[in-house]
Amino acid sequence: MPSLDVADRRHMARAIHLAQEGVYSTMPNPRVGCVLVRDGVVVGEGWHERAGQGHAEVNALAQAGTCAQGATAYVTLEPCSHTGKTGPCCEALAAAGIARVVYGMEDPNPQVAGRGLAYLQAAGVVVAGPLLEDEAWALNPGFIRRMEGGRPWVRCKMAMSLDGRTAMASGESKWVTGPSARADVQRLRARSCAIITGIGSILHDDSALTVREHELKLPNAGLAASIQPLRVVLDSNQQLLASAKVVQSPPRTLVVSAQAQASPALAETAVEQISLPGADGKVDLEKLLHELGRRQCNEVLVEAGANLAAAFLRRGLLDELVIYMAPKLMGSEARPLFDLPLQRMSAQLPLTITDMRAVGNDWRITARPDPDA
Amino acid sequence: MPSLDVADRRHMARAIHLAQEGVYSTMPNPRVGCVLVRDGVVVGEGWHERAGQGHAEVNALAQAGTCAQGATAYVTLEPCSHTGKTGPCCEALAAAGIARVVYGMEDPNPQVAGRGLAYLQAAGVVVAGPLLEDEAWALNPGFIRRMEGGRPWVRCKMAMSLDGRTAMASGESKWVTGPSARADVQRLRARSCAIITGIGSILHDDSALTVREHELKLPNAGLAASIQPLRVVLDSNQQLLASAKVVQSPPRTLVVSAQAQASPALAETAVEQISLPGADGKVDLEKLLHELGRRQCNEVLVEAGANLAAAFLRRGLLDELVIYMAPKLMGSEARPLFDLPLQRMSAQLPLTITDMRAVGNDWRITARPDPDA
Repeated sequence: MPSLDVADRRHMARAIHLAQEGVYSTMPNPRVGCVLVRDGVVVGEGWHERAGQGHAEVNALAQAGTCAQGATAYVTLEPCSHTGKTGPCCEALAAAGIARVVYGMEDPNPQVAGRGLAYLQAAGVVVAGPLLEDEAWALNPGFIRRMEGGRPWVRCKMAMSLDGRTAMASGESKWVTGPSARADVQRLRARSCAIITGIGSILHDDSALTVREHELKLPNAGLAASIQPLRVVLDSNQQLLASAKVVQSPPRTLVVSAQAQASPALAETAVEQISLPGADGKVDLEKLLHELGRRQCNEVLVEAGANLAAAFLRRGLLDELVIYMAPKLMGSEARPLFDLPLQRMSAQLPLTITDMRAVGNDWRITARPDPDA
Repeated sequence: MPSLDVADRRHMARAIHLAQEGVYSTMPNPRVGCVLVRDGVVVGEGWHERAGQGHAEVNALAQAGTCAQGATAYVTLEPCSHTGKTGPCCEALAAAGIARVVYGMEDPNPQVAGRGLAYLQAAGVVVAGPLLEDEAWALNPGFIRRMEGGRPWVRCKMAMSLDGRTAMASGESKWVTGPSARADVQRLRARSCAIITGIGSILHDDSALTVREHELKLPNAGLAASIQPLRVVLDSNQQLLASAKVVQSPPRTLVVSAQAQASPALAETAVEQISLPGADGKVDLEKLLHELGRRQCNEVLVEAGANLAAAFLRRGLLDELVIYMAPKLMGSEARPLFDLPLQRMSAQLPLTITDMRAVGNDWRITARPDPDA
């Protein structure tokens, strides 16, 4: 394999940075960035912005024009070899005279992985990689998970006090965290293809679960808020009323029950109803995730109470926890983070903390369940 | 006031760094550092190491010799004007021909504050300061608190899971945190003049509550471990047995009850017994802290269960929380951080987080109760 040097790493880091521009808008496609470099000079940059529009490579080639001839292309993801809404990028790169392609990671779809690279090599293009593979992976946990296993990346968001409580015993919980943390949650929603909640949360909060443009605090907030995630309400026993905000507010809501018949209460509304009954009389969460995968959901956000969140956790269906920790004590009577009755230390659930940072006066903890820890 | 420039800040920062060398050994004296600079060149450095030995200024003057003539002295704390175990430092500085003194903060004892500075000025020495006062303050929270209010700085250490639990419902708690966090707790003990625990913890764990030299992981571990903190066991109803490790292991243990008579069970042991009954039939915590202040305790460490820790917290007697958070979930049946029954969000206890850092695989959160937040 041709060697990779520090300049290659620098250009790939830039391509990853560009890919992040698409974090709120490429779905169901992956976030991809591309940098074209000739004789050490950047001659083109591009990223994928929206499905149906140009891929990163095509956008970078358009910027480079004839300067692409003989250049090296840095692409965060193996260039596609199939014709979707746009033509295959590996053909475009070869046709533009690209001499060398450095890729971040292979196509995560086991059915197609390597085909783009093989095409390029057959066309006489030098291929090198993977480079900064972990960083390239982190751009698209949902897309990759869906390609590899047919289900989305499941992120669960919670807000708690320093002593691990989410609400008072009465249910009172406004506000555990501050405005910066709440804006951060808006950005979590905006990068998600779907938001899953439980009927209990809806009955308690009557939240619309929409992305609110003015709360995002993003330069491209308009684009991000133009793509609203699918709202998914788990309502095993059909308690949801037509008057709920999540029903009345546009655009899309999917109500999932465990009943054979659709809920008559929602008959006159725009919501879609499906039934995914599990063995316990509740919605089958595994089936739910595969259904969302089938609907091309990459990342989904669980915004639920201690009970539903724990149901995902116990079944090993949570990929990531994002916990906003407020600098306060809510006391020993307040509600727990997860309804998780464990008896022995040996039953505790180990986590790996992948990120810890201040968000306003609160702290955001990102962690992954780690059964091997 | 003479102006202070960036070189002054740099030298004071060095003096603060030197003072930290004494963090485990100066008690009951404050940690103090001193740098002597002439014509931009450091001619002497010193710090206070142990009570009864040279103060920082004297040690720095000894290093500088005749080079002290005309030099600037940077001292983290106003030089002392009284004769304790050693002579007054302000006289020594003036006698050595020091031309200028820059101080970090004034003497915290309101009875003497400013006298050292006034002596120096009367002797023709230029005096400037305070400089880096917050940092100078942070060297000696306990000494300052004791000088100002007659009681120690009270730090409460806890170990919890990410979901805010300290032990399983059964009491099982070995180990919540990892070896790095436990070594960090040893260092918290070593910088403390006293460790307060409750009879419940002793009956459950039978801990000796000593500083173990080999666990400190410090260059000067021998010195640090040679000064063992006073162990204070709160035993309102005299349940402590003579066989407990905290009774049997040297050196000093103070047992505090709420009973009029000394405990016969401890009559043949080396422990000291006192009675500080409060209105509720338990040990009066305010009286306890003033007793520890009278005994020249600067920093005390509360290592107790959820009940005693909450008793300190509810009375506003905790100055600082040091919480080791392990990356794991212990579940909703496990024991709470504090036994603190609060009903309304308006009753929650706000904190200010002053430090957050990784300690091995765990995270250490340092926070202060902040009634004004």
